[in-house]
Amino acid sequence: MSASLPDLIDQGTGRVPADLVLKNGRFFDLVTGDLVSSDIAICGDRIVGTCGRYAGREEIDISGLTVVPGFIDTHLHIESSLVTPHEFDRCVLPYGVTTAICDPHEIANVLGAEGIRFFLDSAEQTIMDVRVQLSSCVPATHLETSGADLPIEALLPFRNHPKVIGLAEFMNFPGVLHKDPVCLAKLEAFQGGHIDGHAPLLRGLDLNGYLSAGIRTDHECTSAEEALEKIRKGMHILVREGSVSKDLHALLPILTERLSPFLALCTDDRNPLDIAEEGHLDFMIREAIRLGAAPLAVYRAASISAARAFGLADRGLVAPGWRADLVVVDSLEGARAAHVFAAGRRVTETLFATRTPVAPVGLDSVKAGRIEPSAFAVPYSDGETSVIGVLPGKIITEHRRFQLPAKGNEAGADLGRDIIKVAVIERHGLNGNHANGFVQGFGLKKGAIASTVGHDSHNICVVGVDADDMALAANRLGEIKGGFVVVEDGRVTAEIALPVAGLMSLEPYESVRDTLQTLRKAAFSLGATLQEPFLQLAFLPLPVIPHLKISDRGLVDVDRFMLIG
Amino acid sequence: MSASLPDLIDQGTGRVPADLVLKNGRFFDLVTGDLVSSDIAICGDRIVGTCGRYAGREEIDISGLTVVPGFIDTHLHIESSLVTPHEFDRCVLPYGVTTAICDPHEIANVLGAEGIRFFLDSAEQTIMDVRVQLSSCVPATHLETSGADLPIEALLPFRNHPKVIGLAEFMNFPGVLHKDPVCLAKLEAFQGGHIDGHAPLLRGLDLNGYLSAGIRTDHECTSAEEALEKIRKGMHILVREGSVSKDLHALLPILTERLSPFLALCTDDRNPLDIAEEGHLDFMIREAIRLGAAPLAVYRAASISAARAFGLADRGLVAPGWRADLVVVDSLEGARAAHVFAAGRRVTETLFATRTPVAPVGLDSVKAGRIEPSAFAVPYSDGETSVIGVLPGKIITEHRRFQLPAKGNEAGADLGRDIIKVAVIERHGLNGNHANGFVQGFGLKKGAIASTVGHDSHNICVVGVDADDMALAANRLGEIKGGFVVVEDGRVTAEIALPVAGLMSLEPYESVRDTLQTLRKAAFSLGATLQEPFLQLAFLPLPVIPHLKISDRGLVDVDRFMLIG
Repeated sequence: MSASLPDLIDQGTGRVPADLVLKNGRFFDLVTGDLVSSDIAICGDRIVGTCGRYAGREEIDISGLTVVPGFIDTHLHIESSLVTPHEFDRCVLPYGVTTAICDPHEIANVLGAEGIRFFLDSAEQTIMDVRVQLSSCVPATHLETSGADLPIEALLPFRNHPKVIGLAEFMNFPGVLHKDPVCLAKLEAFQGGHIDGHAPLLRGLDLNGYLSAGIRTDHECTSAEEALEKIRKGMHILVREGSVSKDLHALLPILTERLSPFLALCTDDRNPLDIAEEGHLDFMIREAIRLGAAPLAVYRAASISAARAFGLADRGLVAPGWRADLVVVDSLEGARAAHVFAAGRRVTETLFATRTPVAPVGLDSVKAGRIEPSAFAVPYSDGETSVIGVLPGKIITEHRRFQLPAKGNEAGADLGRDIIKVAVIERHGLNGNHANGFVQGFGLKKGAIASTVGHDSHNICVVGVDADDMALAANRLGEIKGGFVVVEDGRVTAEIALPVAGLMSLEPYESVRDTLQTLRKAAFSLGATLQEPFLQLAFLPLPVIPHLKISDRGLVDVDRFMLIG
Repeated sequence: MSASLPDLIDQGTGRVPADLVLKNGRFFDLVTGDLVSSDIAICGDRIVGTCGRYAGREEIDISGLTVVPGFIDTHLHIESSLVTPHEFDRCVLPYGVTTAICDPHEIANVLGAEGIRFFLDSAEQTIMDVRVQLSSCVPATHLETSGADLPIEALLPFRNHPKVIGLAEFMNFPGVLHKDPVCLAKLEAFQGGHIDGHAPLLRGLDLNGYLSAGIRTDHECTSAEEALEKIRKGMHILVREGSVSKDLHALLPILTERLSPFLALCTDDRNPLDIAEEGHLDFMIREAIRLGAAPLAVYRAASISAARAFGLADRGLVAPGWRADLVVVDSLEGARAAHVFAAGRRVTETLFATRTPVAPVGLDSVKAGRIEPSAFAVPYSDGETSVIGVLPGKIITEHRRFQLPAKGNEAGADLGRDIIKVAVIERHGLNGNHANGFVQGFGLKKGAIASTVGHDSHNICVVGVDADDMALAANRLGEIKGGFVVVEDGRVTAEIALPVAGLMSLEPYESVRDTLQTLRKAAFSLGATLQEPFLQLAFLPLPVIPHLKISDRGLVDVDRFMLIG
């Protein structure tokens, strides 16, 4: 789609009709902050005319509408949308997200380099410009069994791929500060290149030490004060609003025109239900402006400032010579896309149909053996037992302690106090680990729910009241090659297959969205009180988030960073 | 000087003393606009600590002073300083210019690739970070004889040199608009890379056509209105204040905080006298603030915004992990450097002494044969003769017409109307061209002045009242291998040798500066009324600047872009 220089010059000067002209609208000039009435002329993948009148071989009347640069999601895990990159493209590009900078951290934890390769192959086909950061922390910790190990030697072959930007979120910040050799080898290899940060609550001189290693961005700020320290220390702040972590309200004070050159937006993890109900980055933009942020600051963060932070020098403004990633919105406040153009191509279902499919990978990634109900037994013991306390809408958990009731020789659930069983079962075919524990806060009164999405190692996670139902749910995951399952009274009442590495569906996003609604209802019928039971289940094994978690190796006291049983 | 990651991390966290600490000062945070009281810790070439207190193995007390990021001159021709890159380094770095993005256009016009190689070799030695743009328009036009021709094939071998950024100022904008194949080949090769612009007064749809070719910067804006159109069209505007072209006052209205992410500063051409008397970029900063520009806007333009425009992602902020290019100034308004640090090294004479010299090139570049006084004869003719009208302090000239007096069979000078002779003599040993004409406005009443600096082909330029003196001056240039010469009454009264390609001295800048003062006095004693007679002489042959110029091929009507005799 890239045009020849003679065509670009001829169409830019208006000597010949442009390939495409958006007529009679206006554009938001992110340099001056002005709304400028103008046609927009496009030749191939590039804008060639603004601030003037143009004739086009194709013309689209956009009277009353406003053109803004395509939105850039600066940090996300496509896997969290539960669909393949191709379906993510089809789902999210129509909201105006023309560039997505993803970290294939989830699939890399299951499949290693094969997963990264799948994302890169997909990125070469998507209409949206999907860029890939190389997952820096696989496995995330030594406290769990992941499906792969990615030392620096495994990342280097991808380094110069045209879709690769740099090293993905360096979440092992204790490893950096402790000069862990595996961490340093990765950081060393990317000195002079781009290295994304991930350093929740890191402050003061420790933050300085982390930054001295050449790390440049952060999407983990949860307060304006934290963000202000980090931005003052040269970090580009990626304001995040996902399905799980929602920081926009807290970071509103930094969404100013002055700081805007150093801001970007991201979703990190966003599920298909939220996308369908609220939108994607357009939702963030709308919400930020509704809350009082200046449109100039917000749209800069969504495009030009994001592009500059990641070295994407060809995009982020509506100006001649720039990449024709454009969103035609109803209004700056509405941010609702009437038309989207990706590298000059009008985004339509027909356009998506032109993509070459990429063969899915990891279709046999659920390798756990058959599980018997007896495997969920926890021997009764006197005294208090550690229980994971789930907090609605948060991935942080509490470390609680309870005296559990005896059920024969076993420790039993305590429905009166909303305490049920939780188990994590290794599913990469490596060691067959199975760890049991208890969790409070799901609300389940019967049955079980299970998932092969369990951050970051993505082993089987199951919570339930009944061991038979738990075994059935876990075993069903093996049959459907991964996914989510709800079991009630010995019967699977809802399920979704996620056969791509046990993380992503092979179905269209609409079907995934609808099935998720069915699943949610089925979970509610078990008594689930959490708004997002599968998301909260998926974060129970994440041993880098305080305070008590469970991996296939057992309960993890995150504060002490050790296994406790 | 680059430190190891363990050292960077240890020193950043303050666990061990930093290599160097600037104590008790404050820094100008270009993100928030705050003046922050803080030590600045440096490890190797990198800042590792801000917003805190640090101990250092070396400590410098900067009480009462303010740290700002090193200044970046985004477009200049080092040759205009008349000294080698090594001497430019020694002369200008102490003013706080830690990065200079140069276009070796002058030496390239004399020596071709050898000249570019000399600059790259020098750039590897200088303390200042000298970056090189590849001269895009050599020769500048077909209306003159330059010493070299640099088609795209000659530039490509330099493309991936670590000191090369991209393609230098694409001044042949008519060639772009007319799709000249030589121009397009160069632009094509640098698509996706950086291409500097140069498009004085280009506006409207023609500007759009030029920009559509992927050109991204402009340093030729001479009015705020022009700059506003260009910045709105996505150009990064390099505000220029040189010895010849001075745009700062006119562009003051765009030096705002809002536009600051899209601004930079440059000097283009700045001579050693101005540097000694006023300073360099520090002068621009001081002057801009004195005229009312916001310090935040000015310092951003001088550093972070400039760095971003040229993809220099490691510099431009005082923050951990960033390159330790620092200027310790008396105040934001003063911008006078008390200390300068270049990649963590304190700038001193001792530091300059550590550089490896680079062997000069082009020491025999003045290849014109011996010139007889008779060669300056212009046959008398009835009717009016075209005369170049010089305007004090401007490189633009007027096309004037006069009836000249007869002197025998020859047309003579007319001192009453300040009209004297001008000649350009090819000096690259290619064709021996010699063109004569008349010029008005120099003020000379006797003698001659001559130069081997004559933009852009750098042939011998001589103006004078007396043919004998003109011949002596021109011949003397051959003897001293290029330079400036003043002749009065058959005697050389002042001269400076510029033996490096006939453009640069081999002497220290202090000696060059002093000799230039002597030269200026000698020119004044001939009656010269122009403040900068050698600069104005040097721009007489530049056939891309309106309206009447003279090359070795004859008078050039720039408006019609043709030779007229």
